[in-house]
Amino acid sequence: MVREGAMAPSMKEENMRELTIPFHETAPLYEQIYEYIKAQILEEKLLAGTRLPSTRKLAEHLGVSRSTTQLAYDQLVAEGYLQSEPCRGYFVSKLETLFHMETKSGQIQKQKIEKKEPWLVDFSPRGIDLERFPYALWRRLSRESLNDDNRELFSTGEHKGDECLRQAVCTYLYGARGVFCRPEQLIIGAGNEYLLMLLHQLLGNQIIAMETPTYRQAFLTFKRLGNQVIPVEMDENGMKAEALAHSGAGMAYVMPSHQFPMGIVMPIRRRMELLAWAAEAEGRYLIEDDYDSEFRYKGKPIPSLQSADVKGRVIYLGTFSRAVAPAIRVSYMMLPESLLARYEKNCSFYASTVSRIDQRILARFIDEGHYERHLNRMRGVYKAKHDALLAALSPLSGKYVICGAYAGIHILLESRQGQREQDMVQAAEAAGIRVYGLSEFAIEKEETDRAEKKTETEENKEEEKTKMRSGTILLGYANLKREEIEQGARLLVAALLA
Amino acid sequence: MVREGAMAPSMKEENMRELTIPFHETAPLYEQIYEYIKAQILEEKLLAGTRLPSTRKLAEHLGVSRSTTQLAYDQLVAEGYLQSEPCRGYFVSKLETLFHMETKSGQIQKQKIEKKEPWLVDFSPRGIDLERFPYALWRRLSRESLNDDNRELFSTGEHKGDECLRQAVCTYLYGARGVFCRPEQLIIGAGNEYLLMLLHQLLGNQIIAMETPTYRQAFLTFKRLGNQVIPVEMDENGMKAEALAHSGAGMAYVMPSHQFPMGIVMPIRRRMELLAWAAEAEGRYLIEDDYDSEFRYKGKPIPSLQSADVKGRVIYLGTFSRAVAPAIRVSYMMLPESLLARYEKNCSFYASTVSRIDQRILARFIDEGHYERHLNRMRGVYKAKHDALLAALSPLSGKYVICGAYAGIHILLESRQGQREQDMVQAAEAAGIRVYGLSEFAIEKEETDRAEKKTETEENKEEEKTKMRSGTILLGYANLKREEIEQGARLLVAALLA
Repeated sequence: MVREGAMAPSMKEENMRELTIPFHETAPLYEQIYEYIKAQILEEKLLAGTRLPSTRKLAEHLGVSRSTTQLAYDQLVAEGYLQSEPCRGYFVSKLETLFHMETKSGQIQKQKIEKKEPWLVDFSPRGIDLERFPYALWRRLSRESLNDDNRELFSTGEHKGDECLRQAVCTYLYGARGVFCRPEQLIIGAGNEYLLMLLHQLLGNQIIAMETPTYRQAFLTFKRLGNQVIPVEMDENGMKAEALAHSGAGMAYVMPSHQFPMGIVMPIRRRMELLAWAAEAEGRYLIEDDYDSEFRYKGKPIPSLQSADVKGRVIYLGTFSRAVAPAIRVSYMMLPESLLARYEKNCSFYASTVSRIDQRILARFIDEGHYERHLNRMRGVYKAKHDALLAALSPLSGKYVICGAYAGIHILLESRQGQREQDMVQAAEAAGIRVYGLSEFAIEKEETDRAEKKTETEENKEEEKTKMRSGTILLGYANLKREEIEQGARLLVAALLA
Repeated sequence: MVREGAMAPSMKEENMRELTIPFHETAPLYEQIYEYIKAQILEEKLLAGTRLPSTRKLAEHLGVSRSTTQLAYDQLVAEGYLQSEPCRGYFVSKLETLFHMETKSGQIQKQKIEKKEPWLVDFSPRGIDLERFPYALWRRLSRESLNDDNRELFSTGEHKGDECLRQAVCTYLYGARGVFCRPEQLIIGAGNEYLLMLLHQLLGNQIIAMETPTYRQAFLTFKRLGNQVIPVEMDENGMKAEALAHSGAGMAYVMPSHQFPMGIVMPIRRRMELLAWAAEAEGRYLIEDDYDSEFRYKGKPIPSLQSADVKGRVIYLGTFSRAVAPAIRVSYMMLPESLLARYEKNCSFYASTVSRIDQRILARFIDEGHYERHLNRMRGVYKAKHDALLAALSPLSGKYVICGAYAGIHILLESRQGQREQDMVQAAEAAGIRVYGLSEFAIEKEETDRAEKKTETEENKEEEKTKMRSGTILLGYANLKREEIEQGARLLVAALLA
């Protein structure tokens, strides 16, 4: 596609000059630009394959801000009128893509839903809110870190990550999560999966117990690395200690402060049982993934499992991808003292995978209190979205129950009347709303045995999983606007109660 | 240490005001600052543990540039008078560290050599020249990439790396290395070792043939991941094809354009033999690590092995750590078409390990021609250093022979009169010169079998390796100044001919 497009005509200079939009005050500027270009495409004044002026040029030409033209283009891309090609720009979509379109946009909208599933609202549990990211601050820190004549930032750094950042993370973790560790115990790496790869090189192949449903990214990583993964039953307190004891596992991966996706907070008694299990035999460890403990909207903060670990059996994982931004590929792993010598021996020859410049920026972000302030702000933002969603779903009460609320960035909606998961998902989809069946996050004994051939049997598996557990869907809300949450919830309520 | 220092006194305001240096014109400013502070320490006017003003403050106070104070502090740190503590600043070293020092600096120098081995000149083959790194340009690109209101840079990017960067690398590789590939075949990752971890997840445990001596970082990675590594003999054309055929290996790791550390350029005939070996059986691959092909000072550029591969059996690895800067943790791996589907299936769930901002900066660095210009400049810089080293070593001719010259950033010096490697290294060390025995880069059959217990038997191994191959040392010159190269070579010549 990209290569083909190289011969596509650009919008001619004179055409761009003609592109004058009679702005009026009754609608936002971006909407008027969007409507104007859409009409041009539908009336075939702009032909398929034509390259549009860049958002910057168009903004200059029209005397509006660049974010305005960007919003208009984003909308046109989202609806399929334009295609964005990396490094090249925006092009008018081919006619076939838009089907046999007519100037009545309603009709087109419907055809496109059938083809490309551009959901009216997508309650994805994976998004995060990037609207409130402190871009200007990040730019300033970045500029200052580079301007500082810190030439040493371009030379090889410490293999575990720069001392400044490890120090800053330690201080933060102690205050916010009760995690007590020395900077020597922390390893900074480019993402949790990379850190799990390092851990695998310390511990070799293991039998790893995981809750089901769980965070499938971790499950896939363990499997890819050659570990055996055993799904272990959960009750309302999280992973069952007795089931763990009988699983034959030598390690367990848990999310005690906010289990994904169930939202369970593991009570202290269960935590103690897991810690006792780990202490029972040499070489047993608990991996605590504290992935979104930052976001709680009710009650006291939950301390980490690591803070109750006196025997040094907890490997603690955390990330900045959720609380800061996904593109900031920085995670950290805290090793108990007993594993440090092994780490030095087996892994210290690996250079750090995170650029020192990014490490420096992040260290200042934390040290100067910006991270704390950002978390506080985001807690408010997410709480407001969370509350809006709960309020908008209230007509469902009685027939459905909400679980896992008041923390994290998604909730669960469970049928009380035996409605099957797939029927809930399909009802939502018919209304243009994307929701996520809980079974998508399940791992099964079978699957763990044949993960190698997973993709070949994807269809079968999907079916099996849907059968297994029914009647619960996930609704994420982090990257939706309040209006989208309310609109989506309204449509979902109508679809489920229909 | 760091924590202890927290109670250390800072140099008092009034002391700093007293710190006036009667600058004269007969020595560089940084040297005068260095001498002044050293004298203050030796005369105990500055006491152990005292925190010095930051380089910035001292520069302001003295009215000199910050790089001048930085140079002075660097020198004081290098000689042990000051200790630099990350994030905290510079502190006067404890008396014990400096031994029972006297004001005669010659004596101190000698004591420190015994204790801390601060080489007069260190011919490390690992360094690169960061003096010429285009810092200002990098800062500008960084600023512009962030200022561009490119908010999408903070959201999750493509798992193989951003299309813009993959496109830029493809274009560069085609022009510079004759590597023909589509952006779809390229995977951007945080360092070669990470990419080898991904490759291992595609191909599983393998028997991998490696030349010996070789790049030990790759050897250690292969071993850590659980592969069996077989050392295969080399002749003057590189890995012997017949030995490879009899090794039982299913993969071979080679550096055909400039073998590390031998500097061998593999001729086309041997390349064809290796490609034929790979084509002979299903699932055989050659890993081509093209780590420093950018630097050749004589003759035509050597095309890549990949460019002669018609059967799709070459996995091509490259890095920007050497040609740009070690802190820029960006490497790339080009997979043959036949492995793409498997990559998608097994590894596409891993998010990219490189920050999108860095990817954007690097893409522009390449696209706008800065990379090419930087390489051309560095080629000139390294060639001048290379020539200076060869000239300074010329008195050795007859008794020693130089190999692996005219490319890369190190040379080999081989005894013609049966002098043992360890004797060469020790003679150099006695003169304060650090050189590297070729045996440090060897891998042996034995070692590959027991790599797990490597560190326990480090001493034995060192001995064995030294016995194995004697009389060749490595001299790297990339991060040495011309004067250092000449001084180091002069002392080395004297030591070897003594």
